Amino acid sequence: MTDSIVRHHTNTRMSKIVQAQGLVHLCGQTAVGTDISDIAGQTREVLSRIDGLLTEAGSSRAHILTATIYLREISDFDAMNAEWESWMPNGAAPARTTVEAKLASANLLVEITVTALQASIMTSPD
Amino acid sequence: MTDSIVRHHTNTRMSKIVQAQGLVHLCGQTAVGTDISDIAGQTREVLSRIDGLLTEAGSSRAHILTATIYLREISDFDAMNAEWESWMPNGAAPARTTVEAKLASANLLVEITVTALQASIMTSPD
Amino acid sequence: MTDSIVRHHTNTRMSKIVQAQGLVHLCGQTAVGTDISDIAGQTREVLSRIDGLLTEAGSSRAHILTATIYLREISDFDAMNAEWESWMPNGAAPARTTVEAKLASANLLVEITVTALQASIMTSPD
Repeated sequence: MTDSIVRHHTNTRMSKIVQAQGLVHLCGQTAVGTDISDIAGQTREVLSRIDGLLTEAGSSRAHILTATIYLREISDFDAMNAEWESWMPNGAAPARTTVEAKLASANLLVEITVTALQASIMTSPD
Repeated sequence: MTDSIVRHHTNTRMSKIVQAQGLVHLCGQTAVGTDISDIAGQTREVLSRIDGLLTEAGSSRAHILTATIYLREISDFDAMNAEWESWMPNGAAPARTTVEAKLASANLLVEITVTALQASIMTSPD
Repeated sequence: MTDSIVRHHTNTRMSKIVQAQGLVHLCGQTAVGTDISDIAGQTREVLSRIDGLLTEAGSSRAHILTATIYLREISDFDAMNAEWESWMPNGAAPARTTVEAKLASANLLVEITVTALQASIMTSPD
């Protein structure tokens, strides 16, 4: 196990991926940069981005430990959950918290922040 | 120290308990399923549920590292704190953040998300 | 690596610093107790307090893994970011999430919660 910090996709404001002590921290993912305007579509886009970043970091959606979900409108709870539950592997659901909050841009309906275990940690436990 | 992930009370959406690398992550606890309608009562219910889950995971309220508290009305801050402070063991208070946010259901006044150290980690430091 | 919990500036409600397993968790930092009323000034005050606490804990702004930023008004996003980006060391930006939320007092415009790696962990990886 390395005890240094590895950062990916780092700019002056944030890193999309931060790895340390066997954990992978992603910055809050949104559908920014797209013109997707419905909650189902934005949720799928967010989950797809999380997939990509976790894969890049040597982890996966099956290794998520915690997720914090921010919805611009809490009334989107059920529609977000439908996408979330179809995406989540059986038996792998993380500890989760969902609250309502306005996000960085008015057109963003959902933001999801996750921390995951690096997959390699699981398969080589020593 | 095991490097696998252990999940308890897992459904398609979330796990109430996720354990990995000596840490215990709980999903955000609310008074959902009760008819408790005041902030003091909901806070006590939430803290009682946290007690139960931490005990099940081999941890306790004395081992909480971080807590994030979401209040539907930030004006409930003092009433929530009164319950919180009477519950917290002397000297064991975690790093804490409290903000206002609407929660999954309109009748939920408080949600608390905690991460704790597994107690066994403390007593067998190897 | 010690597996116990070290808490600093602990009162009945929270600890400003909680250290465990090589990580430093700070309680949400605000400009509480000052009369600073603008977002730029409050952000600088918050970042200065984070500097002080991280230094005390044997860490630094270059070792932050995750940051959650709560803005009373999301319209302060750009002004907060200007201070944040001038403060952040080149290449060290954490995984970050920013949302709008009312804070404990009406005059508080920004609260930032960080988790960092202890610097000593980085320099003695054994």
